[in-house]
Amino acid sequence: MEPYIHKVHYYETDKMQITHHSNYIRFMEEARVDFLEKVGYGFDRMEADGLVSPVVGVTCDYKKTTTFAQEIAIAVSVLRCSSFKLVLGYTMTVEGKVVANGTSSHCFMDTNGKFVSLETFYPELYKTLLTYMPENK
Amino acid sequence: MEPYIHKVHYYETDKMQITHHSNYIRFMEEARVDFLEKVGYGFDRMEADGLVSPVVGVTCDYKKTTTFAQEIAIAVSVLRCSSFKLVLGYTMTVEGKVVANGTSSHCFMDTNGKFVSLETFYPELYKTLLTYMPENK
Amino acid sequence: MEPYIHKVHYYETDKMQITHHSNYIRFMEEARVDFLEKVGYGFDRMEADGLVSPVVGVTCDYKKTTTFAQEIAIAVSVLRCSSFKLVLGYTMTVEGKVVANGTSSHCFMDTNGKFVSLETFYPELYKTLLTYMPENK
Amino acid sequence: MEPYIHKVHYYETDKMQITHHSNYIRFMEEARVDFLEKVGYGFDRMEADGLVSPVVGVTCDYKKTTTFAQEIAIAVSVLRCSSFKLVLGYTMTVEGKVVANGTSSHCFMDTNGKFVSLETFYPELYKTLLTYMPENK
Repeated sequence: MEPYIHKVHYYETDKMQITHHSNYIRFMEEARVDFLEKVGYGFDRMEADGLVSPVVGVTCDYKKTTTFAQEIAIAVSVLRCSSFKLVLGYTMTVEGKVVANGTSSHCFMDTNGKFVSLETFYPELYKTLLTYMPENK
Repeated sequence: MEPYIHKVHYYETDKMQITHHSNYIRFMEEARVDFLEKVGYGFDRMEADGLVSPVVGVTCDYKKTTTFAQEIAIAVSVLRCSSFKLVLGYTMTVEGKVVANGTSSHCFMDTNGKFVSLETFYPELYKTLLTYMPENK
Repeated sequence: MEPYIHKVHYYETDKMQITHHSNYIRFMEEARVDFLEKVGYGFDRMEADGLVSPVVGVTCDYKKTTTFAQEIAIAVSVLRCSSFKLVLGYTMTVEGKVVANGTSSHCFMDTNGKFVSLETFYPELYKTLLTYMPENK
Repeated sequence: MEPYIHKVHYYETDKMQITHHSNYIRFMEEARVDFLEKVGYGFDRMEADGLVSPVVGVTCDYKKTTTFAQEIAIAVSVLRCSSFKLVLGYTMTVEGKVVANGTSSHCFMDTNGKFVSLETFYPELYKTLLTYMPENK
């Protein structure tokens, strides 16, 4: 799968003349939306199918700074997928060099905010996500 | 009325080492929320009373740059208030010197998205706003 | 010239489930960067050539709301270009319908922060910008 | 030490009508700036003294959602402080209930971007930070 590309905007830089660290969490969301769309489960479809998958945790390790106009390529992988928890991994690179590594953790809910098992509630998405785990590629 | 104070955050600065110009539009929203609360019509009350007042336009003129940790004092005034349109003015100063002047224009809707006349729908807010016009102070 | 496309990110929406109005000011900056690059004067070249063009004012009129995942096409034009002031116009559309119109005003400085005349300091950019005024197209 | 208070702004909410998760990383920065100022080492002083302390990692676990106008109290503690690494912890609560827990990791550099030992470069800050570790309180 082609990585998602985010070209850093001027307003995403800060006084140190680099991309502000908080923005990487947003780039991860952009890449996640793109990833789900590419695997066939865009937010609109998931919403129509009644599944909500809130973020319950994020991590990000910064390796190199980036700045205005640089293109960050973000590759998404499924680090863990169980009935009740999904962990996505994000490898962010500029010209092939890692600039940051992140993760986001998610639970699954129906539209009433009740926790559900992904495996029973939405088995086709569950199976799809499993195929994107590194060991199954 | 005491002006609203916004202390510039690090993440609000940009590569030029100044507060990014887009953030002033956000500071104006903060000051507007604070102003409405101070005059007795907080967003929660307006919502409970069924009035929505979307932004239909903004302007901002930048006079001096600001940067991290500076305190911007924002004074709000009512530049125009008719049944169908509200224009608020924002004078933003740092240590008494104007750094930016802005305006925001608003219409009035009920919770179904139907345009309403503020004067008939919510006469007490209408009267209150009139008292904050410069000529009535 | 092809308009710049901004696809609305989830984090750019607000509690009213629409794109927060402050973000359009950022979209305008994105479109401006793209426009200058397309006409041959990217930020890196302008910086190398010693010209800085700060934002001295913005306006935005909101016509229709937009939301997550919608693609906003932003066409940039030169509304006014004199030696000391540049005004750019932004027409933002979704599927051909105008959602917002904006402007940004700019002055010209050298890297020491001294005001300069664009016509004498950087005549080739001045001439290029004039060709993008509606009456010269 | 009094916790830092961040009152959630309208523009910090998203389409799910809650505070967007990326903003907590920004609130942590606000609380960190406030904490350092309260312990006597504001960014201006650290800068004047030639120390830079970039963020090399963040984590955030979301426990409960928050929304517009809620006041988030953020208590900062020093989870780890060695010569080469600082880890700060952030406990974010609303009305006494934890809404999120975060950490930020930092290295130490001089203004030339060279890694330095905090203990030898800036011993008074090093000693001060140690006193804010939970076991030393």
